[in-house]
Amino acid sequence: MARIAVVAGDGIGPEVVAQARKVLDAVLPDVQATEYDLGAARWHRTGEVLPDSVLAELAGHDAILLGAVGDPTVPPGVLERGLLLKLRFAFDQYVNLRPSRLWPGVAGPLGNVKPGEVDLVVVREGTEGLYAGAGGSLHRDTPAEVATEESLNTRHGVERVIRDAFARAGRRERRKVTLVHKTNVLTHAGSLWARTFDAVAAEHPDVATEYQHVDAAAMFLVTQPQRYDVVVTDNLFGDILTDIAAAVTGGIGLAASGCINPEGAYPSMFEPVHGSAPDIAGQGIADPVAAVLSAALLLEQLGHSESAARVNAAVAAELASRVPGVTLRTEEVGDRLAAHAVA
Amino acid sequence: MARIAVVAGDGIGPEVVAQARKVLDAVLPDVQATEYDLGAARWHRTGEVLPDSVLAELAGHDAILLGAVGDPTVPPGVLERGLLLKLRFAFDQYVNLRPSRLWPGVAGPLGNVKPGEVDLVVVREGTEGLYAGAGGSLHRDTPAEVATEESLNTRHGVERVIRDAFARAGRRERRKVTLVHKTNVLTHAGSLWARTFDAVAAEHPDVATEYQHVDAAAMFLVTQPQRYDVVVTDNLFGDILTDIAAAVTGGIGLAASGCINPEGAYPSMFEPVHGSAPDIAGQGIADPVAAVLSAALLLEQLGHSESAARVNAAVAAELASRVPGVTLRTEEVGDRLAAHAVA
Ligand SMILES: CC(C)[C@H](C(=O)O)[C@@H](O)C(=O)O
Ligand SMILES: CC(C)[C@H](C(=O)O)[C@@H](O)C(=O)O
Repeated sequence: MARIAVVAGDGIGPEVVAQARKVLDAVLPDVQATEYDLGAARWHRTGEVLPDSVLAELAGHDAILLGAVGDPTVPPGVLERGLLLKLRFAFDQYVNLRPSRLWPGVAGPLGNVKPGEVDLVVVREGTEGLYAGAGGSLHRDTPAEVATEESLNTRHGVERVIRDAFARAGRRERRKVTLVHKTNVLTHAGSLWARTFDAVAAEHPDVATEYQHVDAAAMFLVTQPQRYDVVVTDNLFGDILTDIAAAVTGGIGLAASGCINPEGAYPSMFEPVHGSAPDIAGQGIADPVAAVLSAALLLEQLGHSESAARVNAAVAAELASRVPGVTLRTEEVGDRLAAHAVA
Repeated sequence: MARIAVVAGDGIGPEVVAQARKVLDAVLPDVQATEYDLGAARWHRTGEVLPDSVLAELAGHDAILLGAVGDPTVPPGVLERGLLLKLRFAFDQYVNLRPSRLWPGVAGPLGNVKPGEVDLVVVREGTEGLYAGAGGSLHRDTPAEVATEESLNTRHGVERVIRDAFARAGRRERRKVTLVHKTNVLTHAGSLWARTFDAVAAEHPDVATEYQHVDAAAMFLVTQPQRYDVVVTDNLFGDILTDIAAAVTGGIGLAASGCINPEGAYPSMFEPVHGSAPDIAGQGIADPVAAVLSAALLLEQLGHSESAARVNAAVAAELASRVPGVTLRTEEVGDRLAAHAVA
């Protein structure tokens, strides 16, 4: 039995999560889902972001499925730091996994890249770097104000995520890992990442490696996304690069992600990369594909590789059959995907 | 008389700088250029990166024209921190200016963006943030290693570059400034940037404003680069975003930049965004357009707007006349551009 905590969240979150659950229920007979009311709506109603009691309950699940949280009316940082990042850090989800494929049938923005040619996965570090929350300010609102943000990087944290990237690359066809950092400017953290990368690479002679500065990688993701297989990078660089990867493969409407604690000591969390999209919420027109692909990552993580493959195949069929210009209905897409996944 | 210090540098640097000088000499009769031997070659020969005496001499010039420095054989950081960033910081070049246009005749990678539609300029902060060099490490090469990088941001530094962005926007047709940061995670620095932006915006009711998180901006630069006019952002975000902007407008082979001290207390520095490209150095096939466009920025900064406009027009004509597949010769392009700029 898989105990899944479901955080549908705000905006289109509930709409797309409903489809992901439909698909999960179709391929996995024994899902026990518990809903948790978290996000902008709860914060507005109660002032609470993530009570300790809820955090403790979430910890008792095998995985978390999240729709989207957020709303323009919530001050920046409240839900990000208080909920999303809180969960990533509390549950030691150090692998922030973001695959990007240009699926057949999807018209990407790049003229010279054909569907099927892009199939990369970014292994973004999830618990360190500039996301550590180590910053502050002095003399606020005066001409003397100074504000700092500190990137914290440990050998422990860097090594484990690099090991995960190499393990993933070893299971893929091209077996290539690209390290992305900015070693020429961030010399201390960059050196730690580069030395650790080289040490782990030496244990994997069967995996090809390369290094790129983050600015170059951002460029190459636009000009030659085909060149990447597994990309491993720090938390903030990963945040930016995965949105570029999503953009060149058809947009965040199709981008899935997993915040993974590979050892399973804590639940991993799966969510579409897109936000709550309040502008289209409630209209039944949000694309549930990113949520469904996130559910596939969840299945994979819980060891149900075959079910995950069936969900991915259903998504492939769905995307290949789409007719440009035809507005999709969230519910119908969910129904088709669920039906296809068990056919 | 314009006193220009010329740092041709390594790889294709000397080849493209020679064309930029050709064009400068054509449009400005009284250029007095002094060459400085800096870069990887000098470092290999003498172990010196930037002697204090040279720094002092450079300070006596009106502007610096730089080709490219660097070589795979130089350890990361040596020339970047010791030369490029040293000059940016020593000469208080707080406006790192990076225009991107999709020139007619240039085939960009985006299928749905037409030449002429993209015309944006990134005003990247140049003297603060993660480039301050405030980092360190402990327990190096042990499992306990920790490495930090600190982003330092001051109201002084943030306000002056935002003011520059608004001033530039006020002189442009669309009059729009987009602030890019990551206020939802980097809450201290983000708040300083956002509050300062709002304060300066209030003084410019004629300029439209918007805010975007850096990950969203990276995505929109790929999906809708047309939407941007002036973008103002921090040092590292600007580094990444300008390479994306270059990629979507035909590549770094066409991207110019200026490291500007707007007050003129110190010389500003102008350089193509591309590197030394050792793989094609010495073959006479490097595209000098980025170097020539950088010279146009130099002319603009020194008050020769009309000459700058003539150089830009020459570049426009050159790019519009290019035939895909025909290999260009660096020298010939330089000759054509110089001839056209005075015609
Ligand atoms: C919402 C925000 C905190 C988050 C991040 O920066 O990691 C988001 O952009 C993401 O990529 O999941
Ligand atoms: C070479 C490097 C220090 C530099 C930077 O990071 O600023 C470069 O990438 C640039 O954009 O000019």
